[in-house]
Amino acid sequence: MSSLSTDSPTAILLISCPDKPGIVAAISSFLFENRGNIVDINQHVDQEEGAFFMRVEWEIEGFALKREDLVSSLMPLVDRFSMKWELHFSDIVPRAALFVTRDNHCFYDLLSRHESGELGMEIPLILSNRDDLRSVAERFGIPFHVFPINQGNKEAQEKAEIALLRENGIDLVILARYMQILSPLMTTAFPNRIINIHHSFLPAFPGARPYHSAHRRGVKLVGATSHYVTEELDEGPIIVQGVTPVSHSDAVQDFVRKGRALEQSVLSRAVWLHLNRRILAYANRTIVFG
Amino acid sequence: MSSLSTDSPTAILLISCPDKPGIVAAISSFLFENRGNIVDINQHVDQEEGAFFMRVEWEIEGFALKREDLVSSLMPLVDRFSMKWELHFSDIVPRAALFVTRDNHCFYDLLSRHESGELGMEIPLILSNRDDLRSVAERFGIPFHVFPINQGNKEAQEKAEIALLRENGIDLVILARYMQILSPLMTTAFPNRIINIHHSFLPAFPGARPYHSAHRRGVKLVGATSHYVTEELDEGPIIVQGVTPVSHSDAVQDFVRKGRALEQSVLSRAVWLHLNRRILAYANRTIVFG
Amino acid sequence: MSSLSTDSPTAILLISCPDKPGIVAAISSFLFENRGNIVDINQHVDQEEGAFFMRVEWEIEGFALKREDLVSSLMPLVDRFSMKWELHFSDIVPRAALFVTRDNHCFYDLLSRHESGELGMEIPLILSNRDDLRSVAERFGIPFHVFPINQGNKEAQEKAEIALLRENGIDLVILARYMQILSPLMTTAFPNRIINIHHSFLPAFPGARPYHSAHRRGVKLVGATSHYVTEELDEGPIIVQGVTPVSHSDAVQDFVRKGRALEQSVLSRAVWLHLNRRILAYANRTIVFG
Amino acid sequence: MSSLSTDSPTAILLISCPDKPGIVAAISSFLFENRGNIVDINQHVDQEEGAFFMRVEWEIEGFALKREDLVSSLMPLVDRFSMKWELHFSDIVPRAALFVTRDNHCFYDLLSRHESGELGMEIPLILSNRDDLRSVAERFGIPFHVFPINQGNKEAQEKAEIALLRENGIDLVILARYMQILSPLMTTAFPNRIINIHHSFLPAFPGARPYHSAHRRGVKLVGATSHYVTEELDEGPIIVQGVTPVSHSDAVQDFVRKGRALEQSVLSRAVWLHLNRRILAYANRTIVFG
Repeated sequence: MSSLSTDSPTAILLISCPDKPGIVAAISSFLFENRGNIVDINQHVDQEEGAFFMRVEWEIEGFALKREDLVSSLMPLVDRFSMKWELHFSDIVPRAALFVTRDNHCFYDLLSRHESGELGMEIPLILSNRDDLRSVAERFGIPFHVFPINQGNKEAQEKAEIALLRENGIDLVILARYMQILSPLMTTAFPNRIINIHHSFLPAFPGARPYHSAHRRGVKLVGATSHYVTEELDEGPIIVQGVTPVSHSDAVQDFVRKGRALEQSVLSRAVWLHLNRRILAYANRTIVFG
Repeated sequence: MSSLSTDSPTAILLISCPDKPGIVAAISSFLFENRGNIVDINQHVDQEEGAFFMRVEWEIEGFALKREDLVSSLMPLVDRFSMKWELHFSDIVPRAALFVTRDNHCFYDLLSRHESGELGMEIPLILSNRDDLRSVAERFGIPFHVFPINQGNKEAQEKAEIALLRENGIDLVILARYMQILSPLMTTAFPNRIINIHHSFLPAFPGARPYHSAHRRGVKLVGATSHYVTEELDEGPIIVQGVTPVSHSDAVQDFVRKGRALEQSVLSRAVWLHLNRRILAYANRTIVFG
Repeated sequence: MSSLSTDSPTAILLISCPDKPGIVAAISSFLFENRGNIVDINQHVDQEEGAFFMRVEWEIEGFALKREDLVSSLMPLVDRFSMKWELHFSDIVPRAALFVTRDNHCFYDLLSRHESGELGMEIPLILSNRDDLRSVAERFGIPFHVFPINQGNKEAQEKAEIALLRENGIDLVILARYMQILSPLMTTAFPNRIINIHHSFLPAFPGARPYHSAHRRGVKLVGATSHYVTEELDEGPIIVQGVTPVSHSDAVQDFVRKGRALEQSVLSRAVWLHLNRRILAYANRTIVFG
Repeated sequence: MSSLSTDSPTAILLISCPDKPGIVAAISSFLFENRGNIVDINQHVDQEEGAFFMRVEWEIEGFALKREDLVSSLMPLVDRFSMKWELHFSDIVPRAALFVTRDNHCFYDLLSRHESGELGMEIPLILSNRDDLRSVAERFGIPFHVFPINQGNKEAQEKAEIALLRENGIDLVILARYMQILSPLMTTAFPNRIINIHHSFLPAFPGARPYHSAHRRGVKLVGATSHYVTEELDEGPIIVQGVTPVSHSDAVQDFVRKGRALEQSVLSRAVWLHLNRRILAYANRTIVFG
């Protein structure tokens, strides 16, 4: 979970491939031979599936290869181990769009963390299906776009939304209590790039009004789950989960109130992990090198 | 959650009735007029349902009414407010039967808490569908009864089990990882008197092999739920729930291992609450005056 | 922890007195005879100290006594049981001042909860020893007052602060990561009316830089504690505590980051409890009728 | 945290050394060249201290080097990087002694986990300063040795204890609520090989009667801490910590009761981590590759 204590930029390589001997040796030797100073390395083997996963982060300063040559230099390794890979540089700041509707607690929380520099991202725009939270966006000086959704226009509106997101070079969509179900149009446009917060301990209480369902069932803990959004509602890979105690004396609105701090915590943590390239999604699960 | 710091016996009255003004005043005045020193009083109003619940505990020493006269003296209040009620005396020790199969962790945990005096109950017998844990029962000097269950004999066996439980004056059945589904014969014989531990955060992952299901879904917390057993499998009123963190690096057997301490904790807490008459079951939920 | 589901105003009586039989009966009969519909009643007996504590909340609508006559009508009970008491009305909104310095996470969190109506209070002013967070206050349209503190001026400045607080009818001071130690001048002016958030699990790591100390000690959980401020630094009655896991891979700045959500949660919860008159401070501890 | 899903034995190498480039490459290449199939690899860099830590586990089957040749083959690497190291084989079962006094909950818990195969260790003996728990040891068929300690005999008794432990080839001492302070004689004989459970959230409430101190301070969570024992009482490297909520209504004996499940959980987890060679102690802290 460690942050770099230096400001020197790093490269981060995420890989997954069939497990076989020699992968760690090959990667670490490649970096050593090119004078890459590793600051963090994590791996995981899924023994059931025979799959290997790795995240390695090294300093760019002093590294022998230029950024523009790095990919081609990696190709022999990629081919040898049939790797899927992603390469990131810590000084290229991700651009995130926040989707909101009416509840402001996750929205304010992300904005305040952003303002205090905890989350290394830019927020070029806020998007909503309603006008309610415009004034919050304005206070922070961030453009606020409203795309009202009704029964007939979702596809057209999502096309326009996607165009707007692409224009603004958006890498990450954060659903900060956005109260619309995304269509496959949107979910396939940003695979493993849309993070949602659902206010239950999934897979319990998917769908609408989970606090009401939880209250009716008489649970003793309420939960929150952040996950990547896929075509299946509330079925995507889980990133972070949390719970908080409730009792018989809590009405539904108390569940709502107690859930707020939990949702903030669970969502902001997932966003931080994503921005720091600490998540690999795989087989509808996540590997989190936290 | 407070235990009595004195050893003097107490009476405990649990009531539920339609909510209307004056119930607390009526009960507390009745006790005061009869020189009952209240040591604990809790109430809850379900405003949605218009229902009132109360637990009151007072010292028997110095109380003006004899035990045998108490019920008849309460009748005017019961009638006036249409109360359902239960009356218990703390010096009448409940008799519990433990049902076990193969896993020993909850079994040992309850036996050790019993031995150290934490749980004020007697354990006249252990019941199992298999012979595996006989030696554990024997070490503690508790009779161990085996009722093997197969496809054809469940009803007959449960009849025999119920007869045995009745003979032994059993008030409470604790399913300490007992791996058989109880039929309505048993569940209706001991309504709100059978406590189960299920190794998931219900209502997620009911039924068989919840840790396997949780692992497949990629959850980040595993849960445990103690509940009263009803005819509907894993659907009864929840008493206590807990969770413990897991990660991608945990295999199913790690979920099992990490879940053990959690199951012990969640089950033993539910048993303690029941034995101390701190639970009111209502509308498939519980009110826990913890 | 239940909120009222109705909007009808309530009266809340908090009492403490020597324990003796008949208190509950006397209070509840007094309310019943005056047609007070009790919506919540909680009591606690500290058996070691022989002390009795109670919180009772009833609807004003339909209650036979006028607000202005209530205190005098209670006097016979107060005298009979030697009660200390507080009386509040839910429709008289408390006025809180937020004290801040540089960290904005608790500040934003309280403002957003205030804006969404979770916290029933007014915030007439923000006070700081520095200018850093002025723009945040301005965005929310709340007057921001700066009282720089240096070695020589603390007493004079606190006198001016207290005057400002009194002018504005402030009932509650919330130290939302205010980085100055209050002198006895301030703490005695607002006894049990100043809530602080300290970023450790008190009594571990009192004083300055608790995350640094926690990191040096190698703890596996970091904590946060909200408490009433007394003359003794970080020694006042604890209201709420929470923890969050950390590991060897977390640097101090990761402790800081992980602690933010925790501090928000622990502070906002304490403020909610205080505003809902659910806390009784006693013998440097709190009784929280949550 | 992953357990091996195979039964094939593994070698585990723990190293610490000054951080410099090439360590991961050197170790992983050494293993690859000798056909060692890595099943788990973890590393940590303490950037402040410039220190590097690693745990690597690989299958013995198919590995080119014989066990007896492994150490000498590693020497060039050890010299090159100035490594401190430990080498373990998963099929050499550690031998643990349990020290107990009067409380039985951690004792039973470890015995039941041992019996169910969760903890891969042998328990050749139980040691106590009192006779109270002899019958428990006898039920499990484990020799029980009593060494009464009084003001004058601690040194002599500990000498005898150490002799007994050495005779029995004990690798690990587990203080399962052993109520004697160990002298430096014992702590230096088993450095980082004695695990204690302390019933508080250290560094809060060290020493005797922590639940009493916690109750007096009015905390809202009680904690438990497992740590390696050093000469400084309750000051050794922390391995695992946990907390559980308490309230004003809990008397000291309720803290004790609620703490039991917590202590079991925190101690058994530390023992598991130690037995699986997942802990590196360093600068009075631990690195836990859980």
